[in-house]
Amino acid sequence: MHRLLLTKPDGRHLTLYGREPIDATLQAPSPFAEPLNASAHLRWHPLRGEWVTYAAYRQGRTFLPPPEYNPLAVTRDPSNPTEVPAGRWDVAVFDNRFPSLGQAEGAAPPPELIVPTAPAAGHCEVVVFTQDPQSSLGALPLDHIDLLLQVWGERTQKLGEREEIKYVLPFENRGAEVGVTLHHPHGQIYAYPVVPPVPGRMQQTAAGHYRSRGKGPLEEMIAGERRSGERVLYEGPHAIAFVPACARYPYEVWVAPIEPVEGFAQLQPAQRADLARALKTALLKYDGLWQRPLPYLMAWYQAPTDGQPHPESHLHAELYPPYRTRDRLKYLAGTEIAAGFFAMDALPEEKARELQAVEVNLT
Amino acid sequence: MHRLLLTKPDGRHLTLYGREPIDATLQAPSPFAEPLNASAHLRWHPLRGEWVTYAAYRQGRTFLPPPEYNPLAVTRDPSNPTEVPAGRWDVAVFDNRFPSLGQAEGAAPPPELIVPTAPAAGHCEVVVFTQDPQSSLGALPLDHIDLLLQVWGERTQKLGEREEIKYVLPFENRGAEVGVTLHHPHGQIYAYPVVPPVPGRMQQTAAGHYRSRGKGPLEEMIAGERRSGERVLYEGPHAIAFVPACARYPYEVWVAPIEPVEGFAQLQPAQRADLARALKTALLKYDGLWQRPLPYLMAWYQAPTDGQPHPESHLHAELYPPYRTRDRLKYLAGTEIAAGFFAMDALPEEKARELQAVEVNLT
Repeated sequence: MHRLLLTKPDGRHLTLYGREPIDATLQAPSPFAEPLNASAHLRWHPLRGEWVTYAAYRQGRTFLPPPEYNPLAVTRDPSNPTEVPAGRWDVAVFDNRFPSLGQAEGAAPPPELIVPTAPAAGHCEVVVFTQDPQSSLGALPLDHIDLLLQVWGERTQKLGEREEIKYVLPFENRGAEVGVTLHHPHGQIYAYPVVPPVPGRMQQTAAGHYRSRGKGPLEEMIAGERRSGERVLYEGPHAIAFVPACARYPYEVWVAPIEPVEGFAQLQPAQRADLARALKTALLKYDGLWQRPLPYLMAWYQAPTDGQPHPESHLHAELYPPYRTRDRLKYLAGTEIAAGFFAMDALPEEKARELQAVEVNLT
Repeated sequence: MHRLLLTKPDGRHLTLYGREPIDATLQAPSPFAEPLNASAHLRWHPLRGEWVTYAAYRQGRTFLPPPEYNPLAVTRDPSNPTEVPAGRWDVAVFDNRFPSLGQAEGAAPPPELIVPTAPAAGHCEVVVFTQDPQSSLGALPLDHIDLLLQVWGERTQKLGEREEIKYVLPFENRGAEVGVTLHHPHGQIYAYPVVPPVPGRMQQTAAGHYRSRGKGPLEEMIAGERRSGERVLYEGPHAIAFVPACARYPYEVWVAPIEPVEGFAQLQPAQRADLARALKTALLKYDGLWQRPLPYLMAWYQAPTDGQPHPESHLHAELYPPYRTRDRLKYLAGTEIAAGFFAMDALPEEKARELQAVEVNLT
C-alpha cells in the first residue's frame, strides 16, 4: 500500500492511498478557505444512559453545492476546487468539514445545562472509495477492495492510538433511501470518545459468552451457519458472507473472517483477500437482485480501541438494506425504534435463497 | 368509562369504550371469516443479546384493501364488514389480525435453528382513537383524550396480568413518512413476553439512579426543565410537555405527569386530565408548526408488568417526528443505527422556541 499525507489549505488532513506509488508533488485542494471551526458538544441522556452529540454549526453550512457539482470528484478546474486532487490514487481519506464529533483549538466550551455536558472529543473522516463517480464499492476490482480494507485498518490504528478515542466505526450509507444525496462511492469513519451503545452492548455480550464458552458468539454462529449452509452466500478459505439466522432486516447480510480477528489491522493478507471476495460477492448479489443499485447501511464492527485486549471481538460487517420487497421499504417504527424489539415478516431462509440465486462474477 | 366486550366472528376480541353508555346490542364485525392462525416465533440474536420476532404469515396477508376501503371506519354495509360497528362509542380496541407476537392454539412449534428459538408469546392490539377518519389524536376533545388514557391503562392492566406478559407498550405511528398507509387515527399496543431492549435499559438506568439518589432520573429532569423553562411547551398543575435537553430528534417532545407514576392505571383523575392537556398541547403545536399534520412516532413508557415494584418508573411519552426542517427528513443512518450514538445538528433550545411560538387552543 502506498500513501501520501497532505494538508488542505483550510488545515484539514488528506491522505491518498494507492496500489501503485503516488506522485509526491500532488497538492490537497479544498472547497473552503477558512480554517475548520468545529465545536460539537455532548449531552448526557439520563434516561437512556448514553451521550448525544450536538453540532449546531452543521446547520449553517455555507457550502451548498449545486447538484451537478461533486465535491468528491477530482479537481479539474483549480478555480473550483473539490476535496481531492487529480492524479493516480485509489482511495482518499480526509477530515470531514462538518464533523459531528471533534473540537477545533479554541472552540467554545460546552454549554451549562440541566444535564451533564462535555466537549465532543472524537473525529469524523470521509473515505472516497474510488475516483470514478459512476462506480460502486462492489464493482471495484478485488485488489482495490483489498486496499480499502487496509486503509480502514490503518485509519483505525491511527485514530485508535489517540488517548481520547475509544471506538472506531467505518461505515457506508448508500442510496437516497438512507439519506445520501451524494452518489460518488464513499463512506465515513467515526472515531468516538466512548464505546457507543450498540458496539458496547455487543462487546459486553461477547465478553460474557467468551468467558463461559471460550469462544465469541460470532465464531460459534459462523460455525453453525457453515454447518447448515442454508443462509450462506459465500464461503471461502478464510471468509464468509451470509444472511444471519437472526436477521433483523429482510436482506441483512454479515461478512466476516472465519477465524476471529479483532480488527482490520490484525488481518493476514490471505484473510484480507478472502474477506474482499466475500464482501464483493455480497454487494454484487445486492445489485443483481433487482438489477439496480440496492441501498444499504454497512457498518464494520471491530474491537474497542480502549487499550484492553479483546479476545471476544470478531471483526465483521453488518449490512442492512431498507427494502423488504422490490418496491416496499421496511420502516423502523413503534416496536423497533421505541422498544428496540425487531419484528420481521420475512424469514431469513427465504431471503437467503433469493440472494443465493443471484449469480455474480468475481473476476 | 363505559365499555362493551365483544367477540368477532373470527374469534378476535373487540372492546368498545365510551364516555357515554354503549348500546349492548352492538355486534362485532370482522373483514375475515376464518379464525386467526398466528404462529410467530422468536429467534435469539447472540451478538446483541436480544430476541427478534418472525411472523412470516404477515407476508401472506389475504387482505389487501383498496385505497378507498378503510377497515377502521365503522361498518355501513354488513356485506362489506370493517373492524368496528356503527353505534355510539369513542375508542375501540381489537386484536391485530396480523400480529407480530402471539400464538393461536395448535400453532406450529418454532423451527430448530443454529440460534435458540421460542414461541412468540405476547399480544398485539389495534386502538382506534375515534370514529372520525378525518380527525387526529390532537384534535380530539380533552375528555376524549382523557378516555384514551384510561383505555391505555385498562389494556395495560389486563395484558400485564397475564403470566407471560412482561411489558406493555402503547404507541402511535403517524404519517406516510413513518410507514403508515392507513390515515384513520389509530395506534397499537404491543404486549411483550420480555422487557424489550430499550425500556429494559431505561428501567435499569432508572433503578440505579433511584438507588443512589432516591429519585428517578425523569423526576429530576422534569424538576430541571421546570426551573429552566427554556424548553417547556406546557406546564400545568400535574403534567408537563417539553423538548428534552438531551433530545435525539430535532422536534422530540416528552409528555409526563410531574409526580412519578408507574403507569396509566396509577394516574389520579386530576393527573390524567392534566396529562391530556399536556399531550393535546404538544400535538396541536406539532400540527400548527407548518400548518400540516406532522408525522411522528409516539411511545408511552411505563413500568414493566413483571410483578415487581418499580418505584424508579415514571410514565411518559416520547414523541419523535422524522423531520429536521419543513422539507428535510432526519434519516437515521450510520452513527444512529449502527452505533446507537445520535448526532444532532439542531439544538433542542432552538426547536423548543419554534414550538413555543405556535399558539394552540385547548378548549
